[in-house]
Amino acid sequence: MHFPIPVLDDVTQTELAARLQHLLDNKTKPVGSLGQIERLAQRIGLILGSEAPELRDPQLVVFAGDHGLAARGVSAYPSDVTWQMVENFLAGGAAVSVLARQNGIGLTVVDCGVRHDFAPRPGLVINKVAPGTADALEGLAMSAAQCNVAIASGAALVKDLPGNALLLGEMGIGNTSAASLLMSRLAGLDIVDCTGAGTGLDAPAVQRKIGILRQVLARHPDAKAPLDALAAFGGFEIATMVGSVLQAAAERRVIVVDGFIASSAVLVASALQPAVLQRCVFAHQSGERGHALMLAHLKAEPLLDLGLRLGEGSGAALAWPLLMSACAILREMASFDSAGVSRQDSAETAVR
Amino acid sequence: MHFPIPVLDDVTQTELAARLQHLLDNKTKPVGSLGQIERLAQRIGLILGSEAPELRDPQLVVFAGDHGLAARGVSAYPSDVTWQMVENFLAGGAAVSVLARQNGIGLTVVDCGVRHDFAPRPGLVINKVAPGTADALEGLAMSAAQCNVAIASGAALVKDLPGNALLLGEMGIGNTSAASLLMSRLAGLDIVDCTGAGTGLDAPAVQRKIGILRQVLARHPDAKAPLDALAAFGGFEIATMVGSVLQAAAERRVIVVDGFIASSAVLVASALQPAVLQRCVFAHQSGERGHALMLAHLKAEPLLDLGLRLGEGSGAALAWPLLMSACAILREMASFDSAGVSRQDSAETAVR
Repeated sequence: MHFPIPVLDDVTQTELAARLQHLLDNKTKPVGSLGQIERLAQRIGLILGSEAPELRDPQLVVFAGDHGLAARGVSAYPSDVTWQMVENFLAGGAAVSVLARQNGIGLTVVDCGVRHDFAPRPGLVINKVAPGTADALEGLAMSAAQCNVAIASGAALVKDLPGNALLLGEMGIGNTSAASLLMSRLAGLDIVDCTGAGTGLDAPAVQRKIGILRQVLARHPDAKAPLDALAAFGGFEIATMVGSVLQAAAERRVIVVDGFIASSAVLVASALQPAVLQRCVFAHQSGERGHALMLAHLKAEPLLDLGLRLGEGSGAALAWPLLMSACAILREMASFDSAGVSRQDSAETAVR
Repeated sequence: MHFPIPVLDDVTQTELAARLQHLLDNKTKPVGSLGQIERLAQRIGLILGSEAPELRDPQLVVFAGDHGLAARGVSAYPSDVTWQMVENFLAGGAAVSVLARQNGIGLTVVDCGVRHDFAPRPGLVINKVAPGTADALEGLAMSAAQCNVAIASGAALVKDLPGNALLLGEMGIGNTSAASLLMSRLAGLDIVDCTGAGTGLDAPAVQRKIGILRQVLARHPDAKAPLDALAAFGGFEIATMVGSVLQAAAERRVIVVDGFIASSAVLVASALQPAVLQRCVFAHQSGERGHALMLAHLKAEPLLDLGLRLGEGSGAALAWPLLMSACAILREMASFDSAGVSRQDSAETAVR
């Protein structure tokens, strides 16, 4: 009764890729001189299937959930901060609220499993699987059935969203632990290399966190398949995000991946359906230890490297204008021919 | 008869810096979790002298000029491309035109010394010192008097600009050579470490370029003071930019430095008046060999690292939204108290 994984059509069409490259190479600039912005333009053109890609009505979704493991002291903050921050997102005072507003990005907060009852209101979707996951050191963070419900709800959520771009955000005290566990298990890496300070643990506390996470991995030796690992380690916000990523990829939306937690959801989704990665733009490399290695594992080329370690989707929102720039370059820049600018070729004689 | 260098008031006021840091530390996020964005907010707050800094009416100026040395084959493009690209900037088809438009940045092109007569039109300022510099291998690229005229015209230009932010752009076939020469002489570095491919020389051509630049340095052994080096090596667009940087710094505008050439103008300006650096935000580390070292010399912390090597101010325009974000974070984010979110402190008991 697992969520049916969509089979994605391949967007690396050689013909469109060649046309996009030809367009970029004929813009009035030295070939390749816009660096990563050109590769970004290629990527978005391929996802949207257009030589003149236009990003419409971007939507940032903050997936929120609580973690049973948080009670074991894996975070510097208490679980109550999860619901308090959801209130802050909705009131417009959080970093992601400010950055989404600045950049004209729609913001939706989803209660995927917060240990708190929210009053319904605009901008809040209540898809609560349960009030927080169970303690992964005692058993599964969630049942297979719960995992399935979360994934399906994430997919359904995206179907209802306008626009052609999905920016991933999250909130959940304890969720760097879940992400580290997923990374260690699915990428086959030692937990030490996957674990960092999260919201701000000091060095001894990080060592304690690593010790706890090592025990959690030992508790679930058979949780090796992507969905089994997801159920074992959690959380509800990550599972819901996995469903949203799969659905957004199937609809050929541009998926803007934020930091460590969002990348862990993409890791799970791409383990289920590798072509998901073709639809992703990685916004930044975060300051969280483990993220650089996770990005390398995903063969990702992040746009920003600003030492961010906030989550929420803040890095995705900060990087968003670069995606808009890449599209504008493709759509609006003149070619050598249209602008009457001499090419490098004609200079060769002068140079020699 | 040198241009009078303004003496800048120090903007690293400890009291305002402390207030800004206190504000940032009390925003609803783990301390320091917005990484470089927080340091950027500090910087802009100090420049504008405000705890709620607001960037108004940003102005990108493209300083354009031709170089006598270009005839010696130091560039992959012919000098005619300088004026052709000026036409392209004004017609709205160049990368910087597209990016300035996207981000609501005013664009002015200044003919500081292009070897071409432009028809006057809106958006073009004609401050031509001469139609291109002289060949720096034969003598000074410009006379001391010309250098002075260029600096004064750059200063006058900024006085007339609206807004409180100046983004630096440039166009001039051959100007990576001038920038490399200035860097080598003023930073005391070997020309090999200061010289790259510019608009796209292949490896043997870069070696030839290095050979020529070494001869130029040997030709002017006494051009050691900043203005003497500037006159010896050029160009008019760099000298004009130096004047604009000095004036903008004196007016406490936020100066957004683009790539290698713009950084070389800041290098000259800061050699004249070190406090200039307090007013600068470095947009990016470019793909041009030498820029990383130049930024290190200036103790700069660039925002982007996208392998850009186009110039024009394109990197400054791409980074601009990050400056807007930094200000919005300071102005609009809630504090722990105002949002009723628990602090890390209250979690300490739970963690232990």
